[in-house]
Amino acid sequence: RKVDEFMERHGLGVGDLVRVVKREGDERITFEGLVMPPYELSPGETLTIKLDNGYNIGILIDAIEGIEILEKAKEAPKMEFREVLPRKEGLPSVTILGTGGTIASRIDYKTGAVHAAFTAEELAKAVPEIFDIANITPKLLFNIMSEDMKPEYWKKIAHEAAKALNSDEDGVVIAHGTDTMGYTAAALSFMLRNLTKPVVLVGSQRSSDRPSSDAAMNLICATRMAVSDAAEVMVVMHGETSDTYCLAHRGTKVRKMHTSRRDTFRSINDVPIAKVWPDGKIEYLRDDYRKRGEGEVEVDDKFEEKVAILKIYPGVTSELLEFLVDRGYKGIVIEGTGLGHTPNDMIPAIERAVENGVAVCMTSQCLYGRVNLNVYSTGRRLLKAGVIPCEDMLPETAYVKLGWVLGHTDDLKEVRRMMLTNYAGEITPYTRFDTFLR
Amino acid sequence: RKVDEFMERHGLGVGDLVRVVKREGDERITFEGLVMPPYELSPGETLTIKLDNGYNIGILIDAIEGIEILEKAKEAPKMEFREVLPRKEGLPSVTILGTGGTIASRIDYKTGAVHAAFTAEELAKAVPEIFDIANITPKLLFNIMSEDMKPEYWKKIAHEAAKALNSDEDGVVIAHGTDTMGYTAAALSFMLRNLTKPVVLVGSQRSSDRPSSDAAMNLICATRMAVSDAAEVMVVMHGETSDTYCLAHRGTKVRKMHTSRRDTFRSINDVPIAKVWPDGKIEYLRDDYRKRGEGEVEVDDKFEEKVAILKIYPGVTSELLEFLVDRGYKGIVIEGTGLGHTPNDMIPAIERAVENGVAVCMTSQCLYGRVNLNVYSTGRRLLKAGVIPCEDMLPETAYVKLGWVLGHTDDLKEVRRMMLTNYAGEITPYTRFDTFLR
Ligand SMILES: N[C@@H](CC(=O)O)C(=O)O
Ligand SMILES: N[C@@H](CC(=O)O)C(=O)O
Repeated sequence: RKVDEFMERHGLGVGDLVRVVKREGDERITFEGLVMPPYELSPGETLTIKLDNGYNIGILIDAIEGIEILEKAKEAPKMEFREVLPRKEGLPSVTILGTGGTIASRIDYKTGAVHAAFTAEELAKAVPEIFDIANITPKLLFNIMSEDMKPEYWKKIAHEAAKALNSDEDGVVIAHGTDTMGYTAAALSFMLRNLTKPVVLVGSQRSSDRPSSDAAMNLICATRMAVSDAAEVMVVMHGETSDTYCLAHRGTKVRKMHTSRRDTFRSINDVPIAKVWPDGKIEYLRDDYRKRGEGEVEVDDKFEEKVAILKIYPGVTSELLEFLVDRGYKGIVIEGTGLGHTPNDMIPAIERAVENGVAVCMTSQCLYGRVNLNVYSTGRRLLKAGVIPCEDMLPETAYVKLGWVLGHTDDLKEVRRMMLTNYAGEITPYTRFDTFLR
Repeated sequence: RKVDEFMERHGLGVGDLVRVVKREGDERITFEGLVMPPYELSPGETLTIKLDNGYNIGILIDAIEGIEILEKAKEAPKMEFREVLPRKEGLPSVTILGTGGTIASRIDYKTGAVHAAFTAEELAKAVPEIFDIANITPKLLFNIMSEDMKPEYWKKIAHEAAKALNSDEDGVVIAHGTDTMGYTAAALSFMLRNLTKPVVLVGSQRSSDRPSSDAAMNLICATRMAVSDAAEVMVVMHGETSDTYCLAHRGTKVRKMHTSRRDTFRSINDVPIAKVWPDGKIEYLRDDYRKRGEGEVEVDDKFEEKVAILKIYPGVTSELLEFLVDRGYKGIVIEGTGLGHTPNDMIPAIERAVENGVAVCMTSQCLYGRVNLNVYSTGRRLLKAGVIPCEDMLPETAYVKLGWVLGHTDDLKEVRRMMLTNYAGEITPYTRFDTFLR
């Protein structure tokens, strides 16, 4: 990676105080600050500097005109999750995996300082309540905004979660940016097989340096669910805008539905698994969730990345679809209109895609409801062309699932069978009308 | 068109009783029925036959192995909207434009028969109430399922609506399939300038041959709104699942949110304009709607079709975006994550697109809320790359608007100015939190 090379070339170490000159158009800007460690899985194109005011900035390596070490680090700043608190007897144990996002980078919401990641001390200072719920082992996997999340990072998270659960932890909490938390939740739902303990994703919708941050309550509720008896991959976030309770959503049915509200995560076409209050009260909203049990959690992380989502709209042409086929894509999830339609003049291109061995799956951009390709003639033609109707799966979940399914087989019959098999609650057997806009 | 040529070559006239032999794989299937008129704007690849059981089927011209005329038509069947009822004095007048969809093709919901389009008699039989509200002039524009709607048809609808309004009609109702009704509503909102009378889109979510069809009540409420004093482009559909009231949604803020519920259309990030009851009661939910007025409605239908929607998801690569740029696309609406993000490694491709003169607009796949590119560094980088943040516009509305804006200018400064100008209520000045999931 560029950043490693750059640091080596200039003899830079983590924690060194440096002065960097950066080109910005015709201007030159100078920054002074501490060199931060490049995260394991970052693209590595930027050098991160912690400024005096507590903020981190990433400077593109290519834009750096000069760098000068003002003072070598005495000791590396505390940037890693570390366990610092004495374990209390009788408490269950929870590993918190940090992946980044607002919740990880700004957890110290009381002081308003911005941190690249949180240490156990910082966690304790910010959210001391969680240490009464469980013995916490924090572990930093990476520190990215979740818009930069990638399928290969999902695998890493799955392995780390399984490792923790299989070494006697009672549950895992994953701190994650909210932008793509739904996708990661779906990915873990498919990749973690024989799940016998809770895996809880949590984030915060308001950056923790705002007075109204939801980070603390979400983290507390997430820890509560991590020691509960629900052996599911869940997203735990505010259930209402006020600090009343959180909802635990099933990982395959959850979606970010608002850019900024605290109760942005909603279960689509399904009832959440539970309501959970910070004080530990849990009200299960259904009884068909997976219960905590015995046995090793397995990781099945085979994943085909040549999969795309294609949204349908009036004026869409077949050329995008044809391009994907030409580029060797193995699967396409269509976000169709209504019950699952494309314009009729796109159907020949879909037929050709299927003939070329591409798995074409249908979902609906309505989000709520279930595709049904038997009602209208357009749908019937799509079925005949070989399209796989994805029941009431979210487009995002169908995308993740298709990548996972294609990691296992490229036989279209088998792909269809697997897409229509319910692995992690992604398909509900019938449409519950009482879940609309909830 | 193939169908015109085919009819001419075989001496076929509308209404002729024919026997058609169709190839289906290795099989040959024979149909008998009446030749239906090919609709003006259909792709023209199929011959439509009305079978004995009342159903229409479309047979691909290319699959026809043989055709035989059994009996020439005595008179063409009544396939056109015709005005048959005496005009009642003192009533306002409303033109109903038929474009297709469930509501137009199966309006005779009481008998269960399927019709390609409805005559005024059929309307009267099915929904006699509307003739007490207004003198109705029905006019069939085309008869397509709305998944086949195209920007060029939007123009046709806009011109027909304006023509009716400018020749003294008090309002226009447009019967339309529900799949893409939201897109057409947005298109008309931009194309109809100086709107001084109501333009109401209506459809039905349950096919009219089902006992629970919503067609009749929707049409009644739509006609009510068409004679109201709201000079807006609106979608009028069920407000609840039961037959209580309809909601009149602003054309730029409305979206189909459920594959099959009757109350599928919802206003996103905004309050509907009104509640309307079949008996004529109208409760305005706001007072900032455009009021009925004087003056000619103008049509501004310039539209650039080289525009696409691109959805962001983990694993999306820049190649799709680059392909669009290579193919000469002039505008791209990104459905970003959260507040309006793409992966950081896509930003260089976006920069290049903008440098090539492509307008790149940002919306959020959350649907609810407002993009904000100032909160996170990813957003700031996108802003710097030249992305236009589309406030709280729906991705679908931003797409339609961008095509319309690019029909007027390709100067990116001007595109930005127009995209951020509120033409038809597509941008709300501030986010109303009470509109979430309503
Ligand atoms: N863009 C951030 C927002 C958040 O953390 O909530 C992310 O998804 O990582
Ligand atoms: N697929 C149909 C459904 C309907 O009419 O509601 C259409 O949009 O035209």
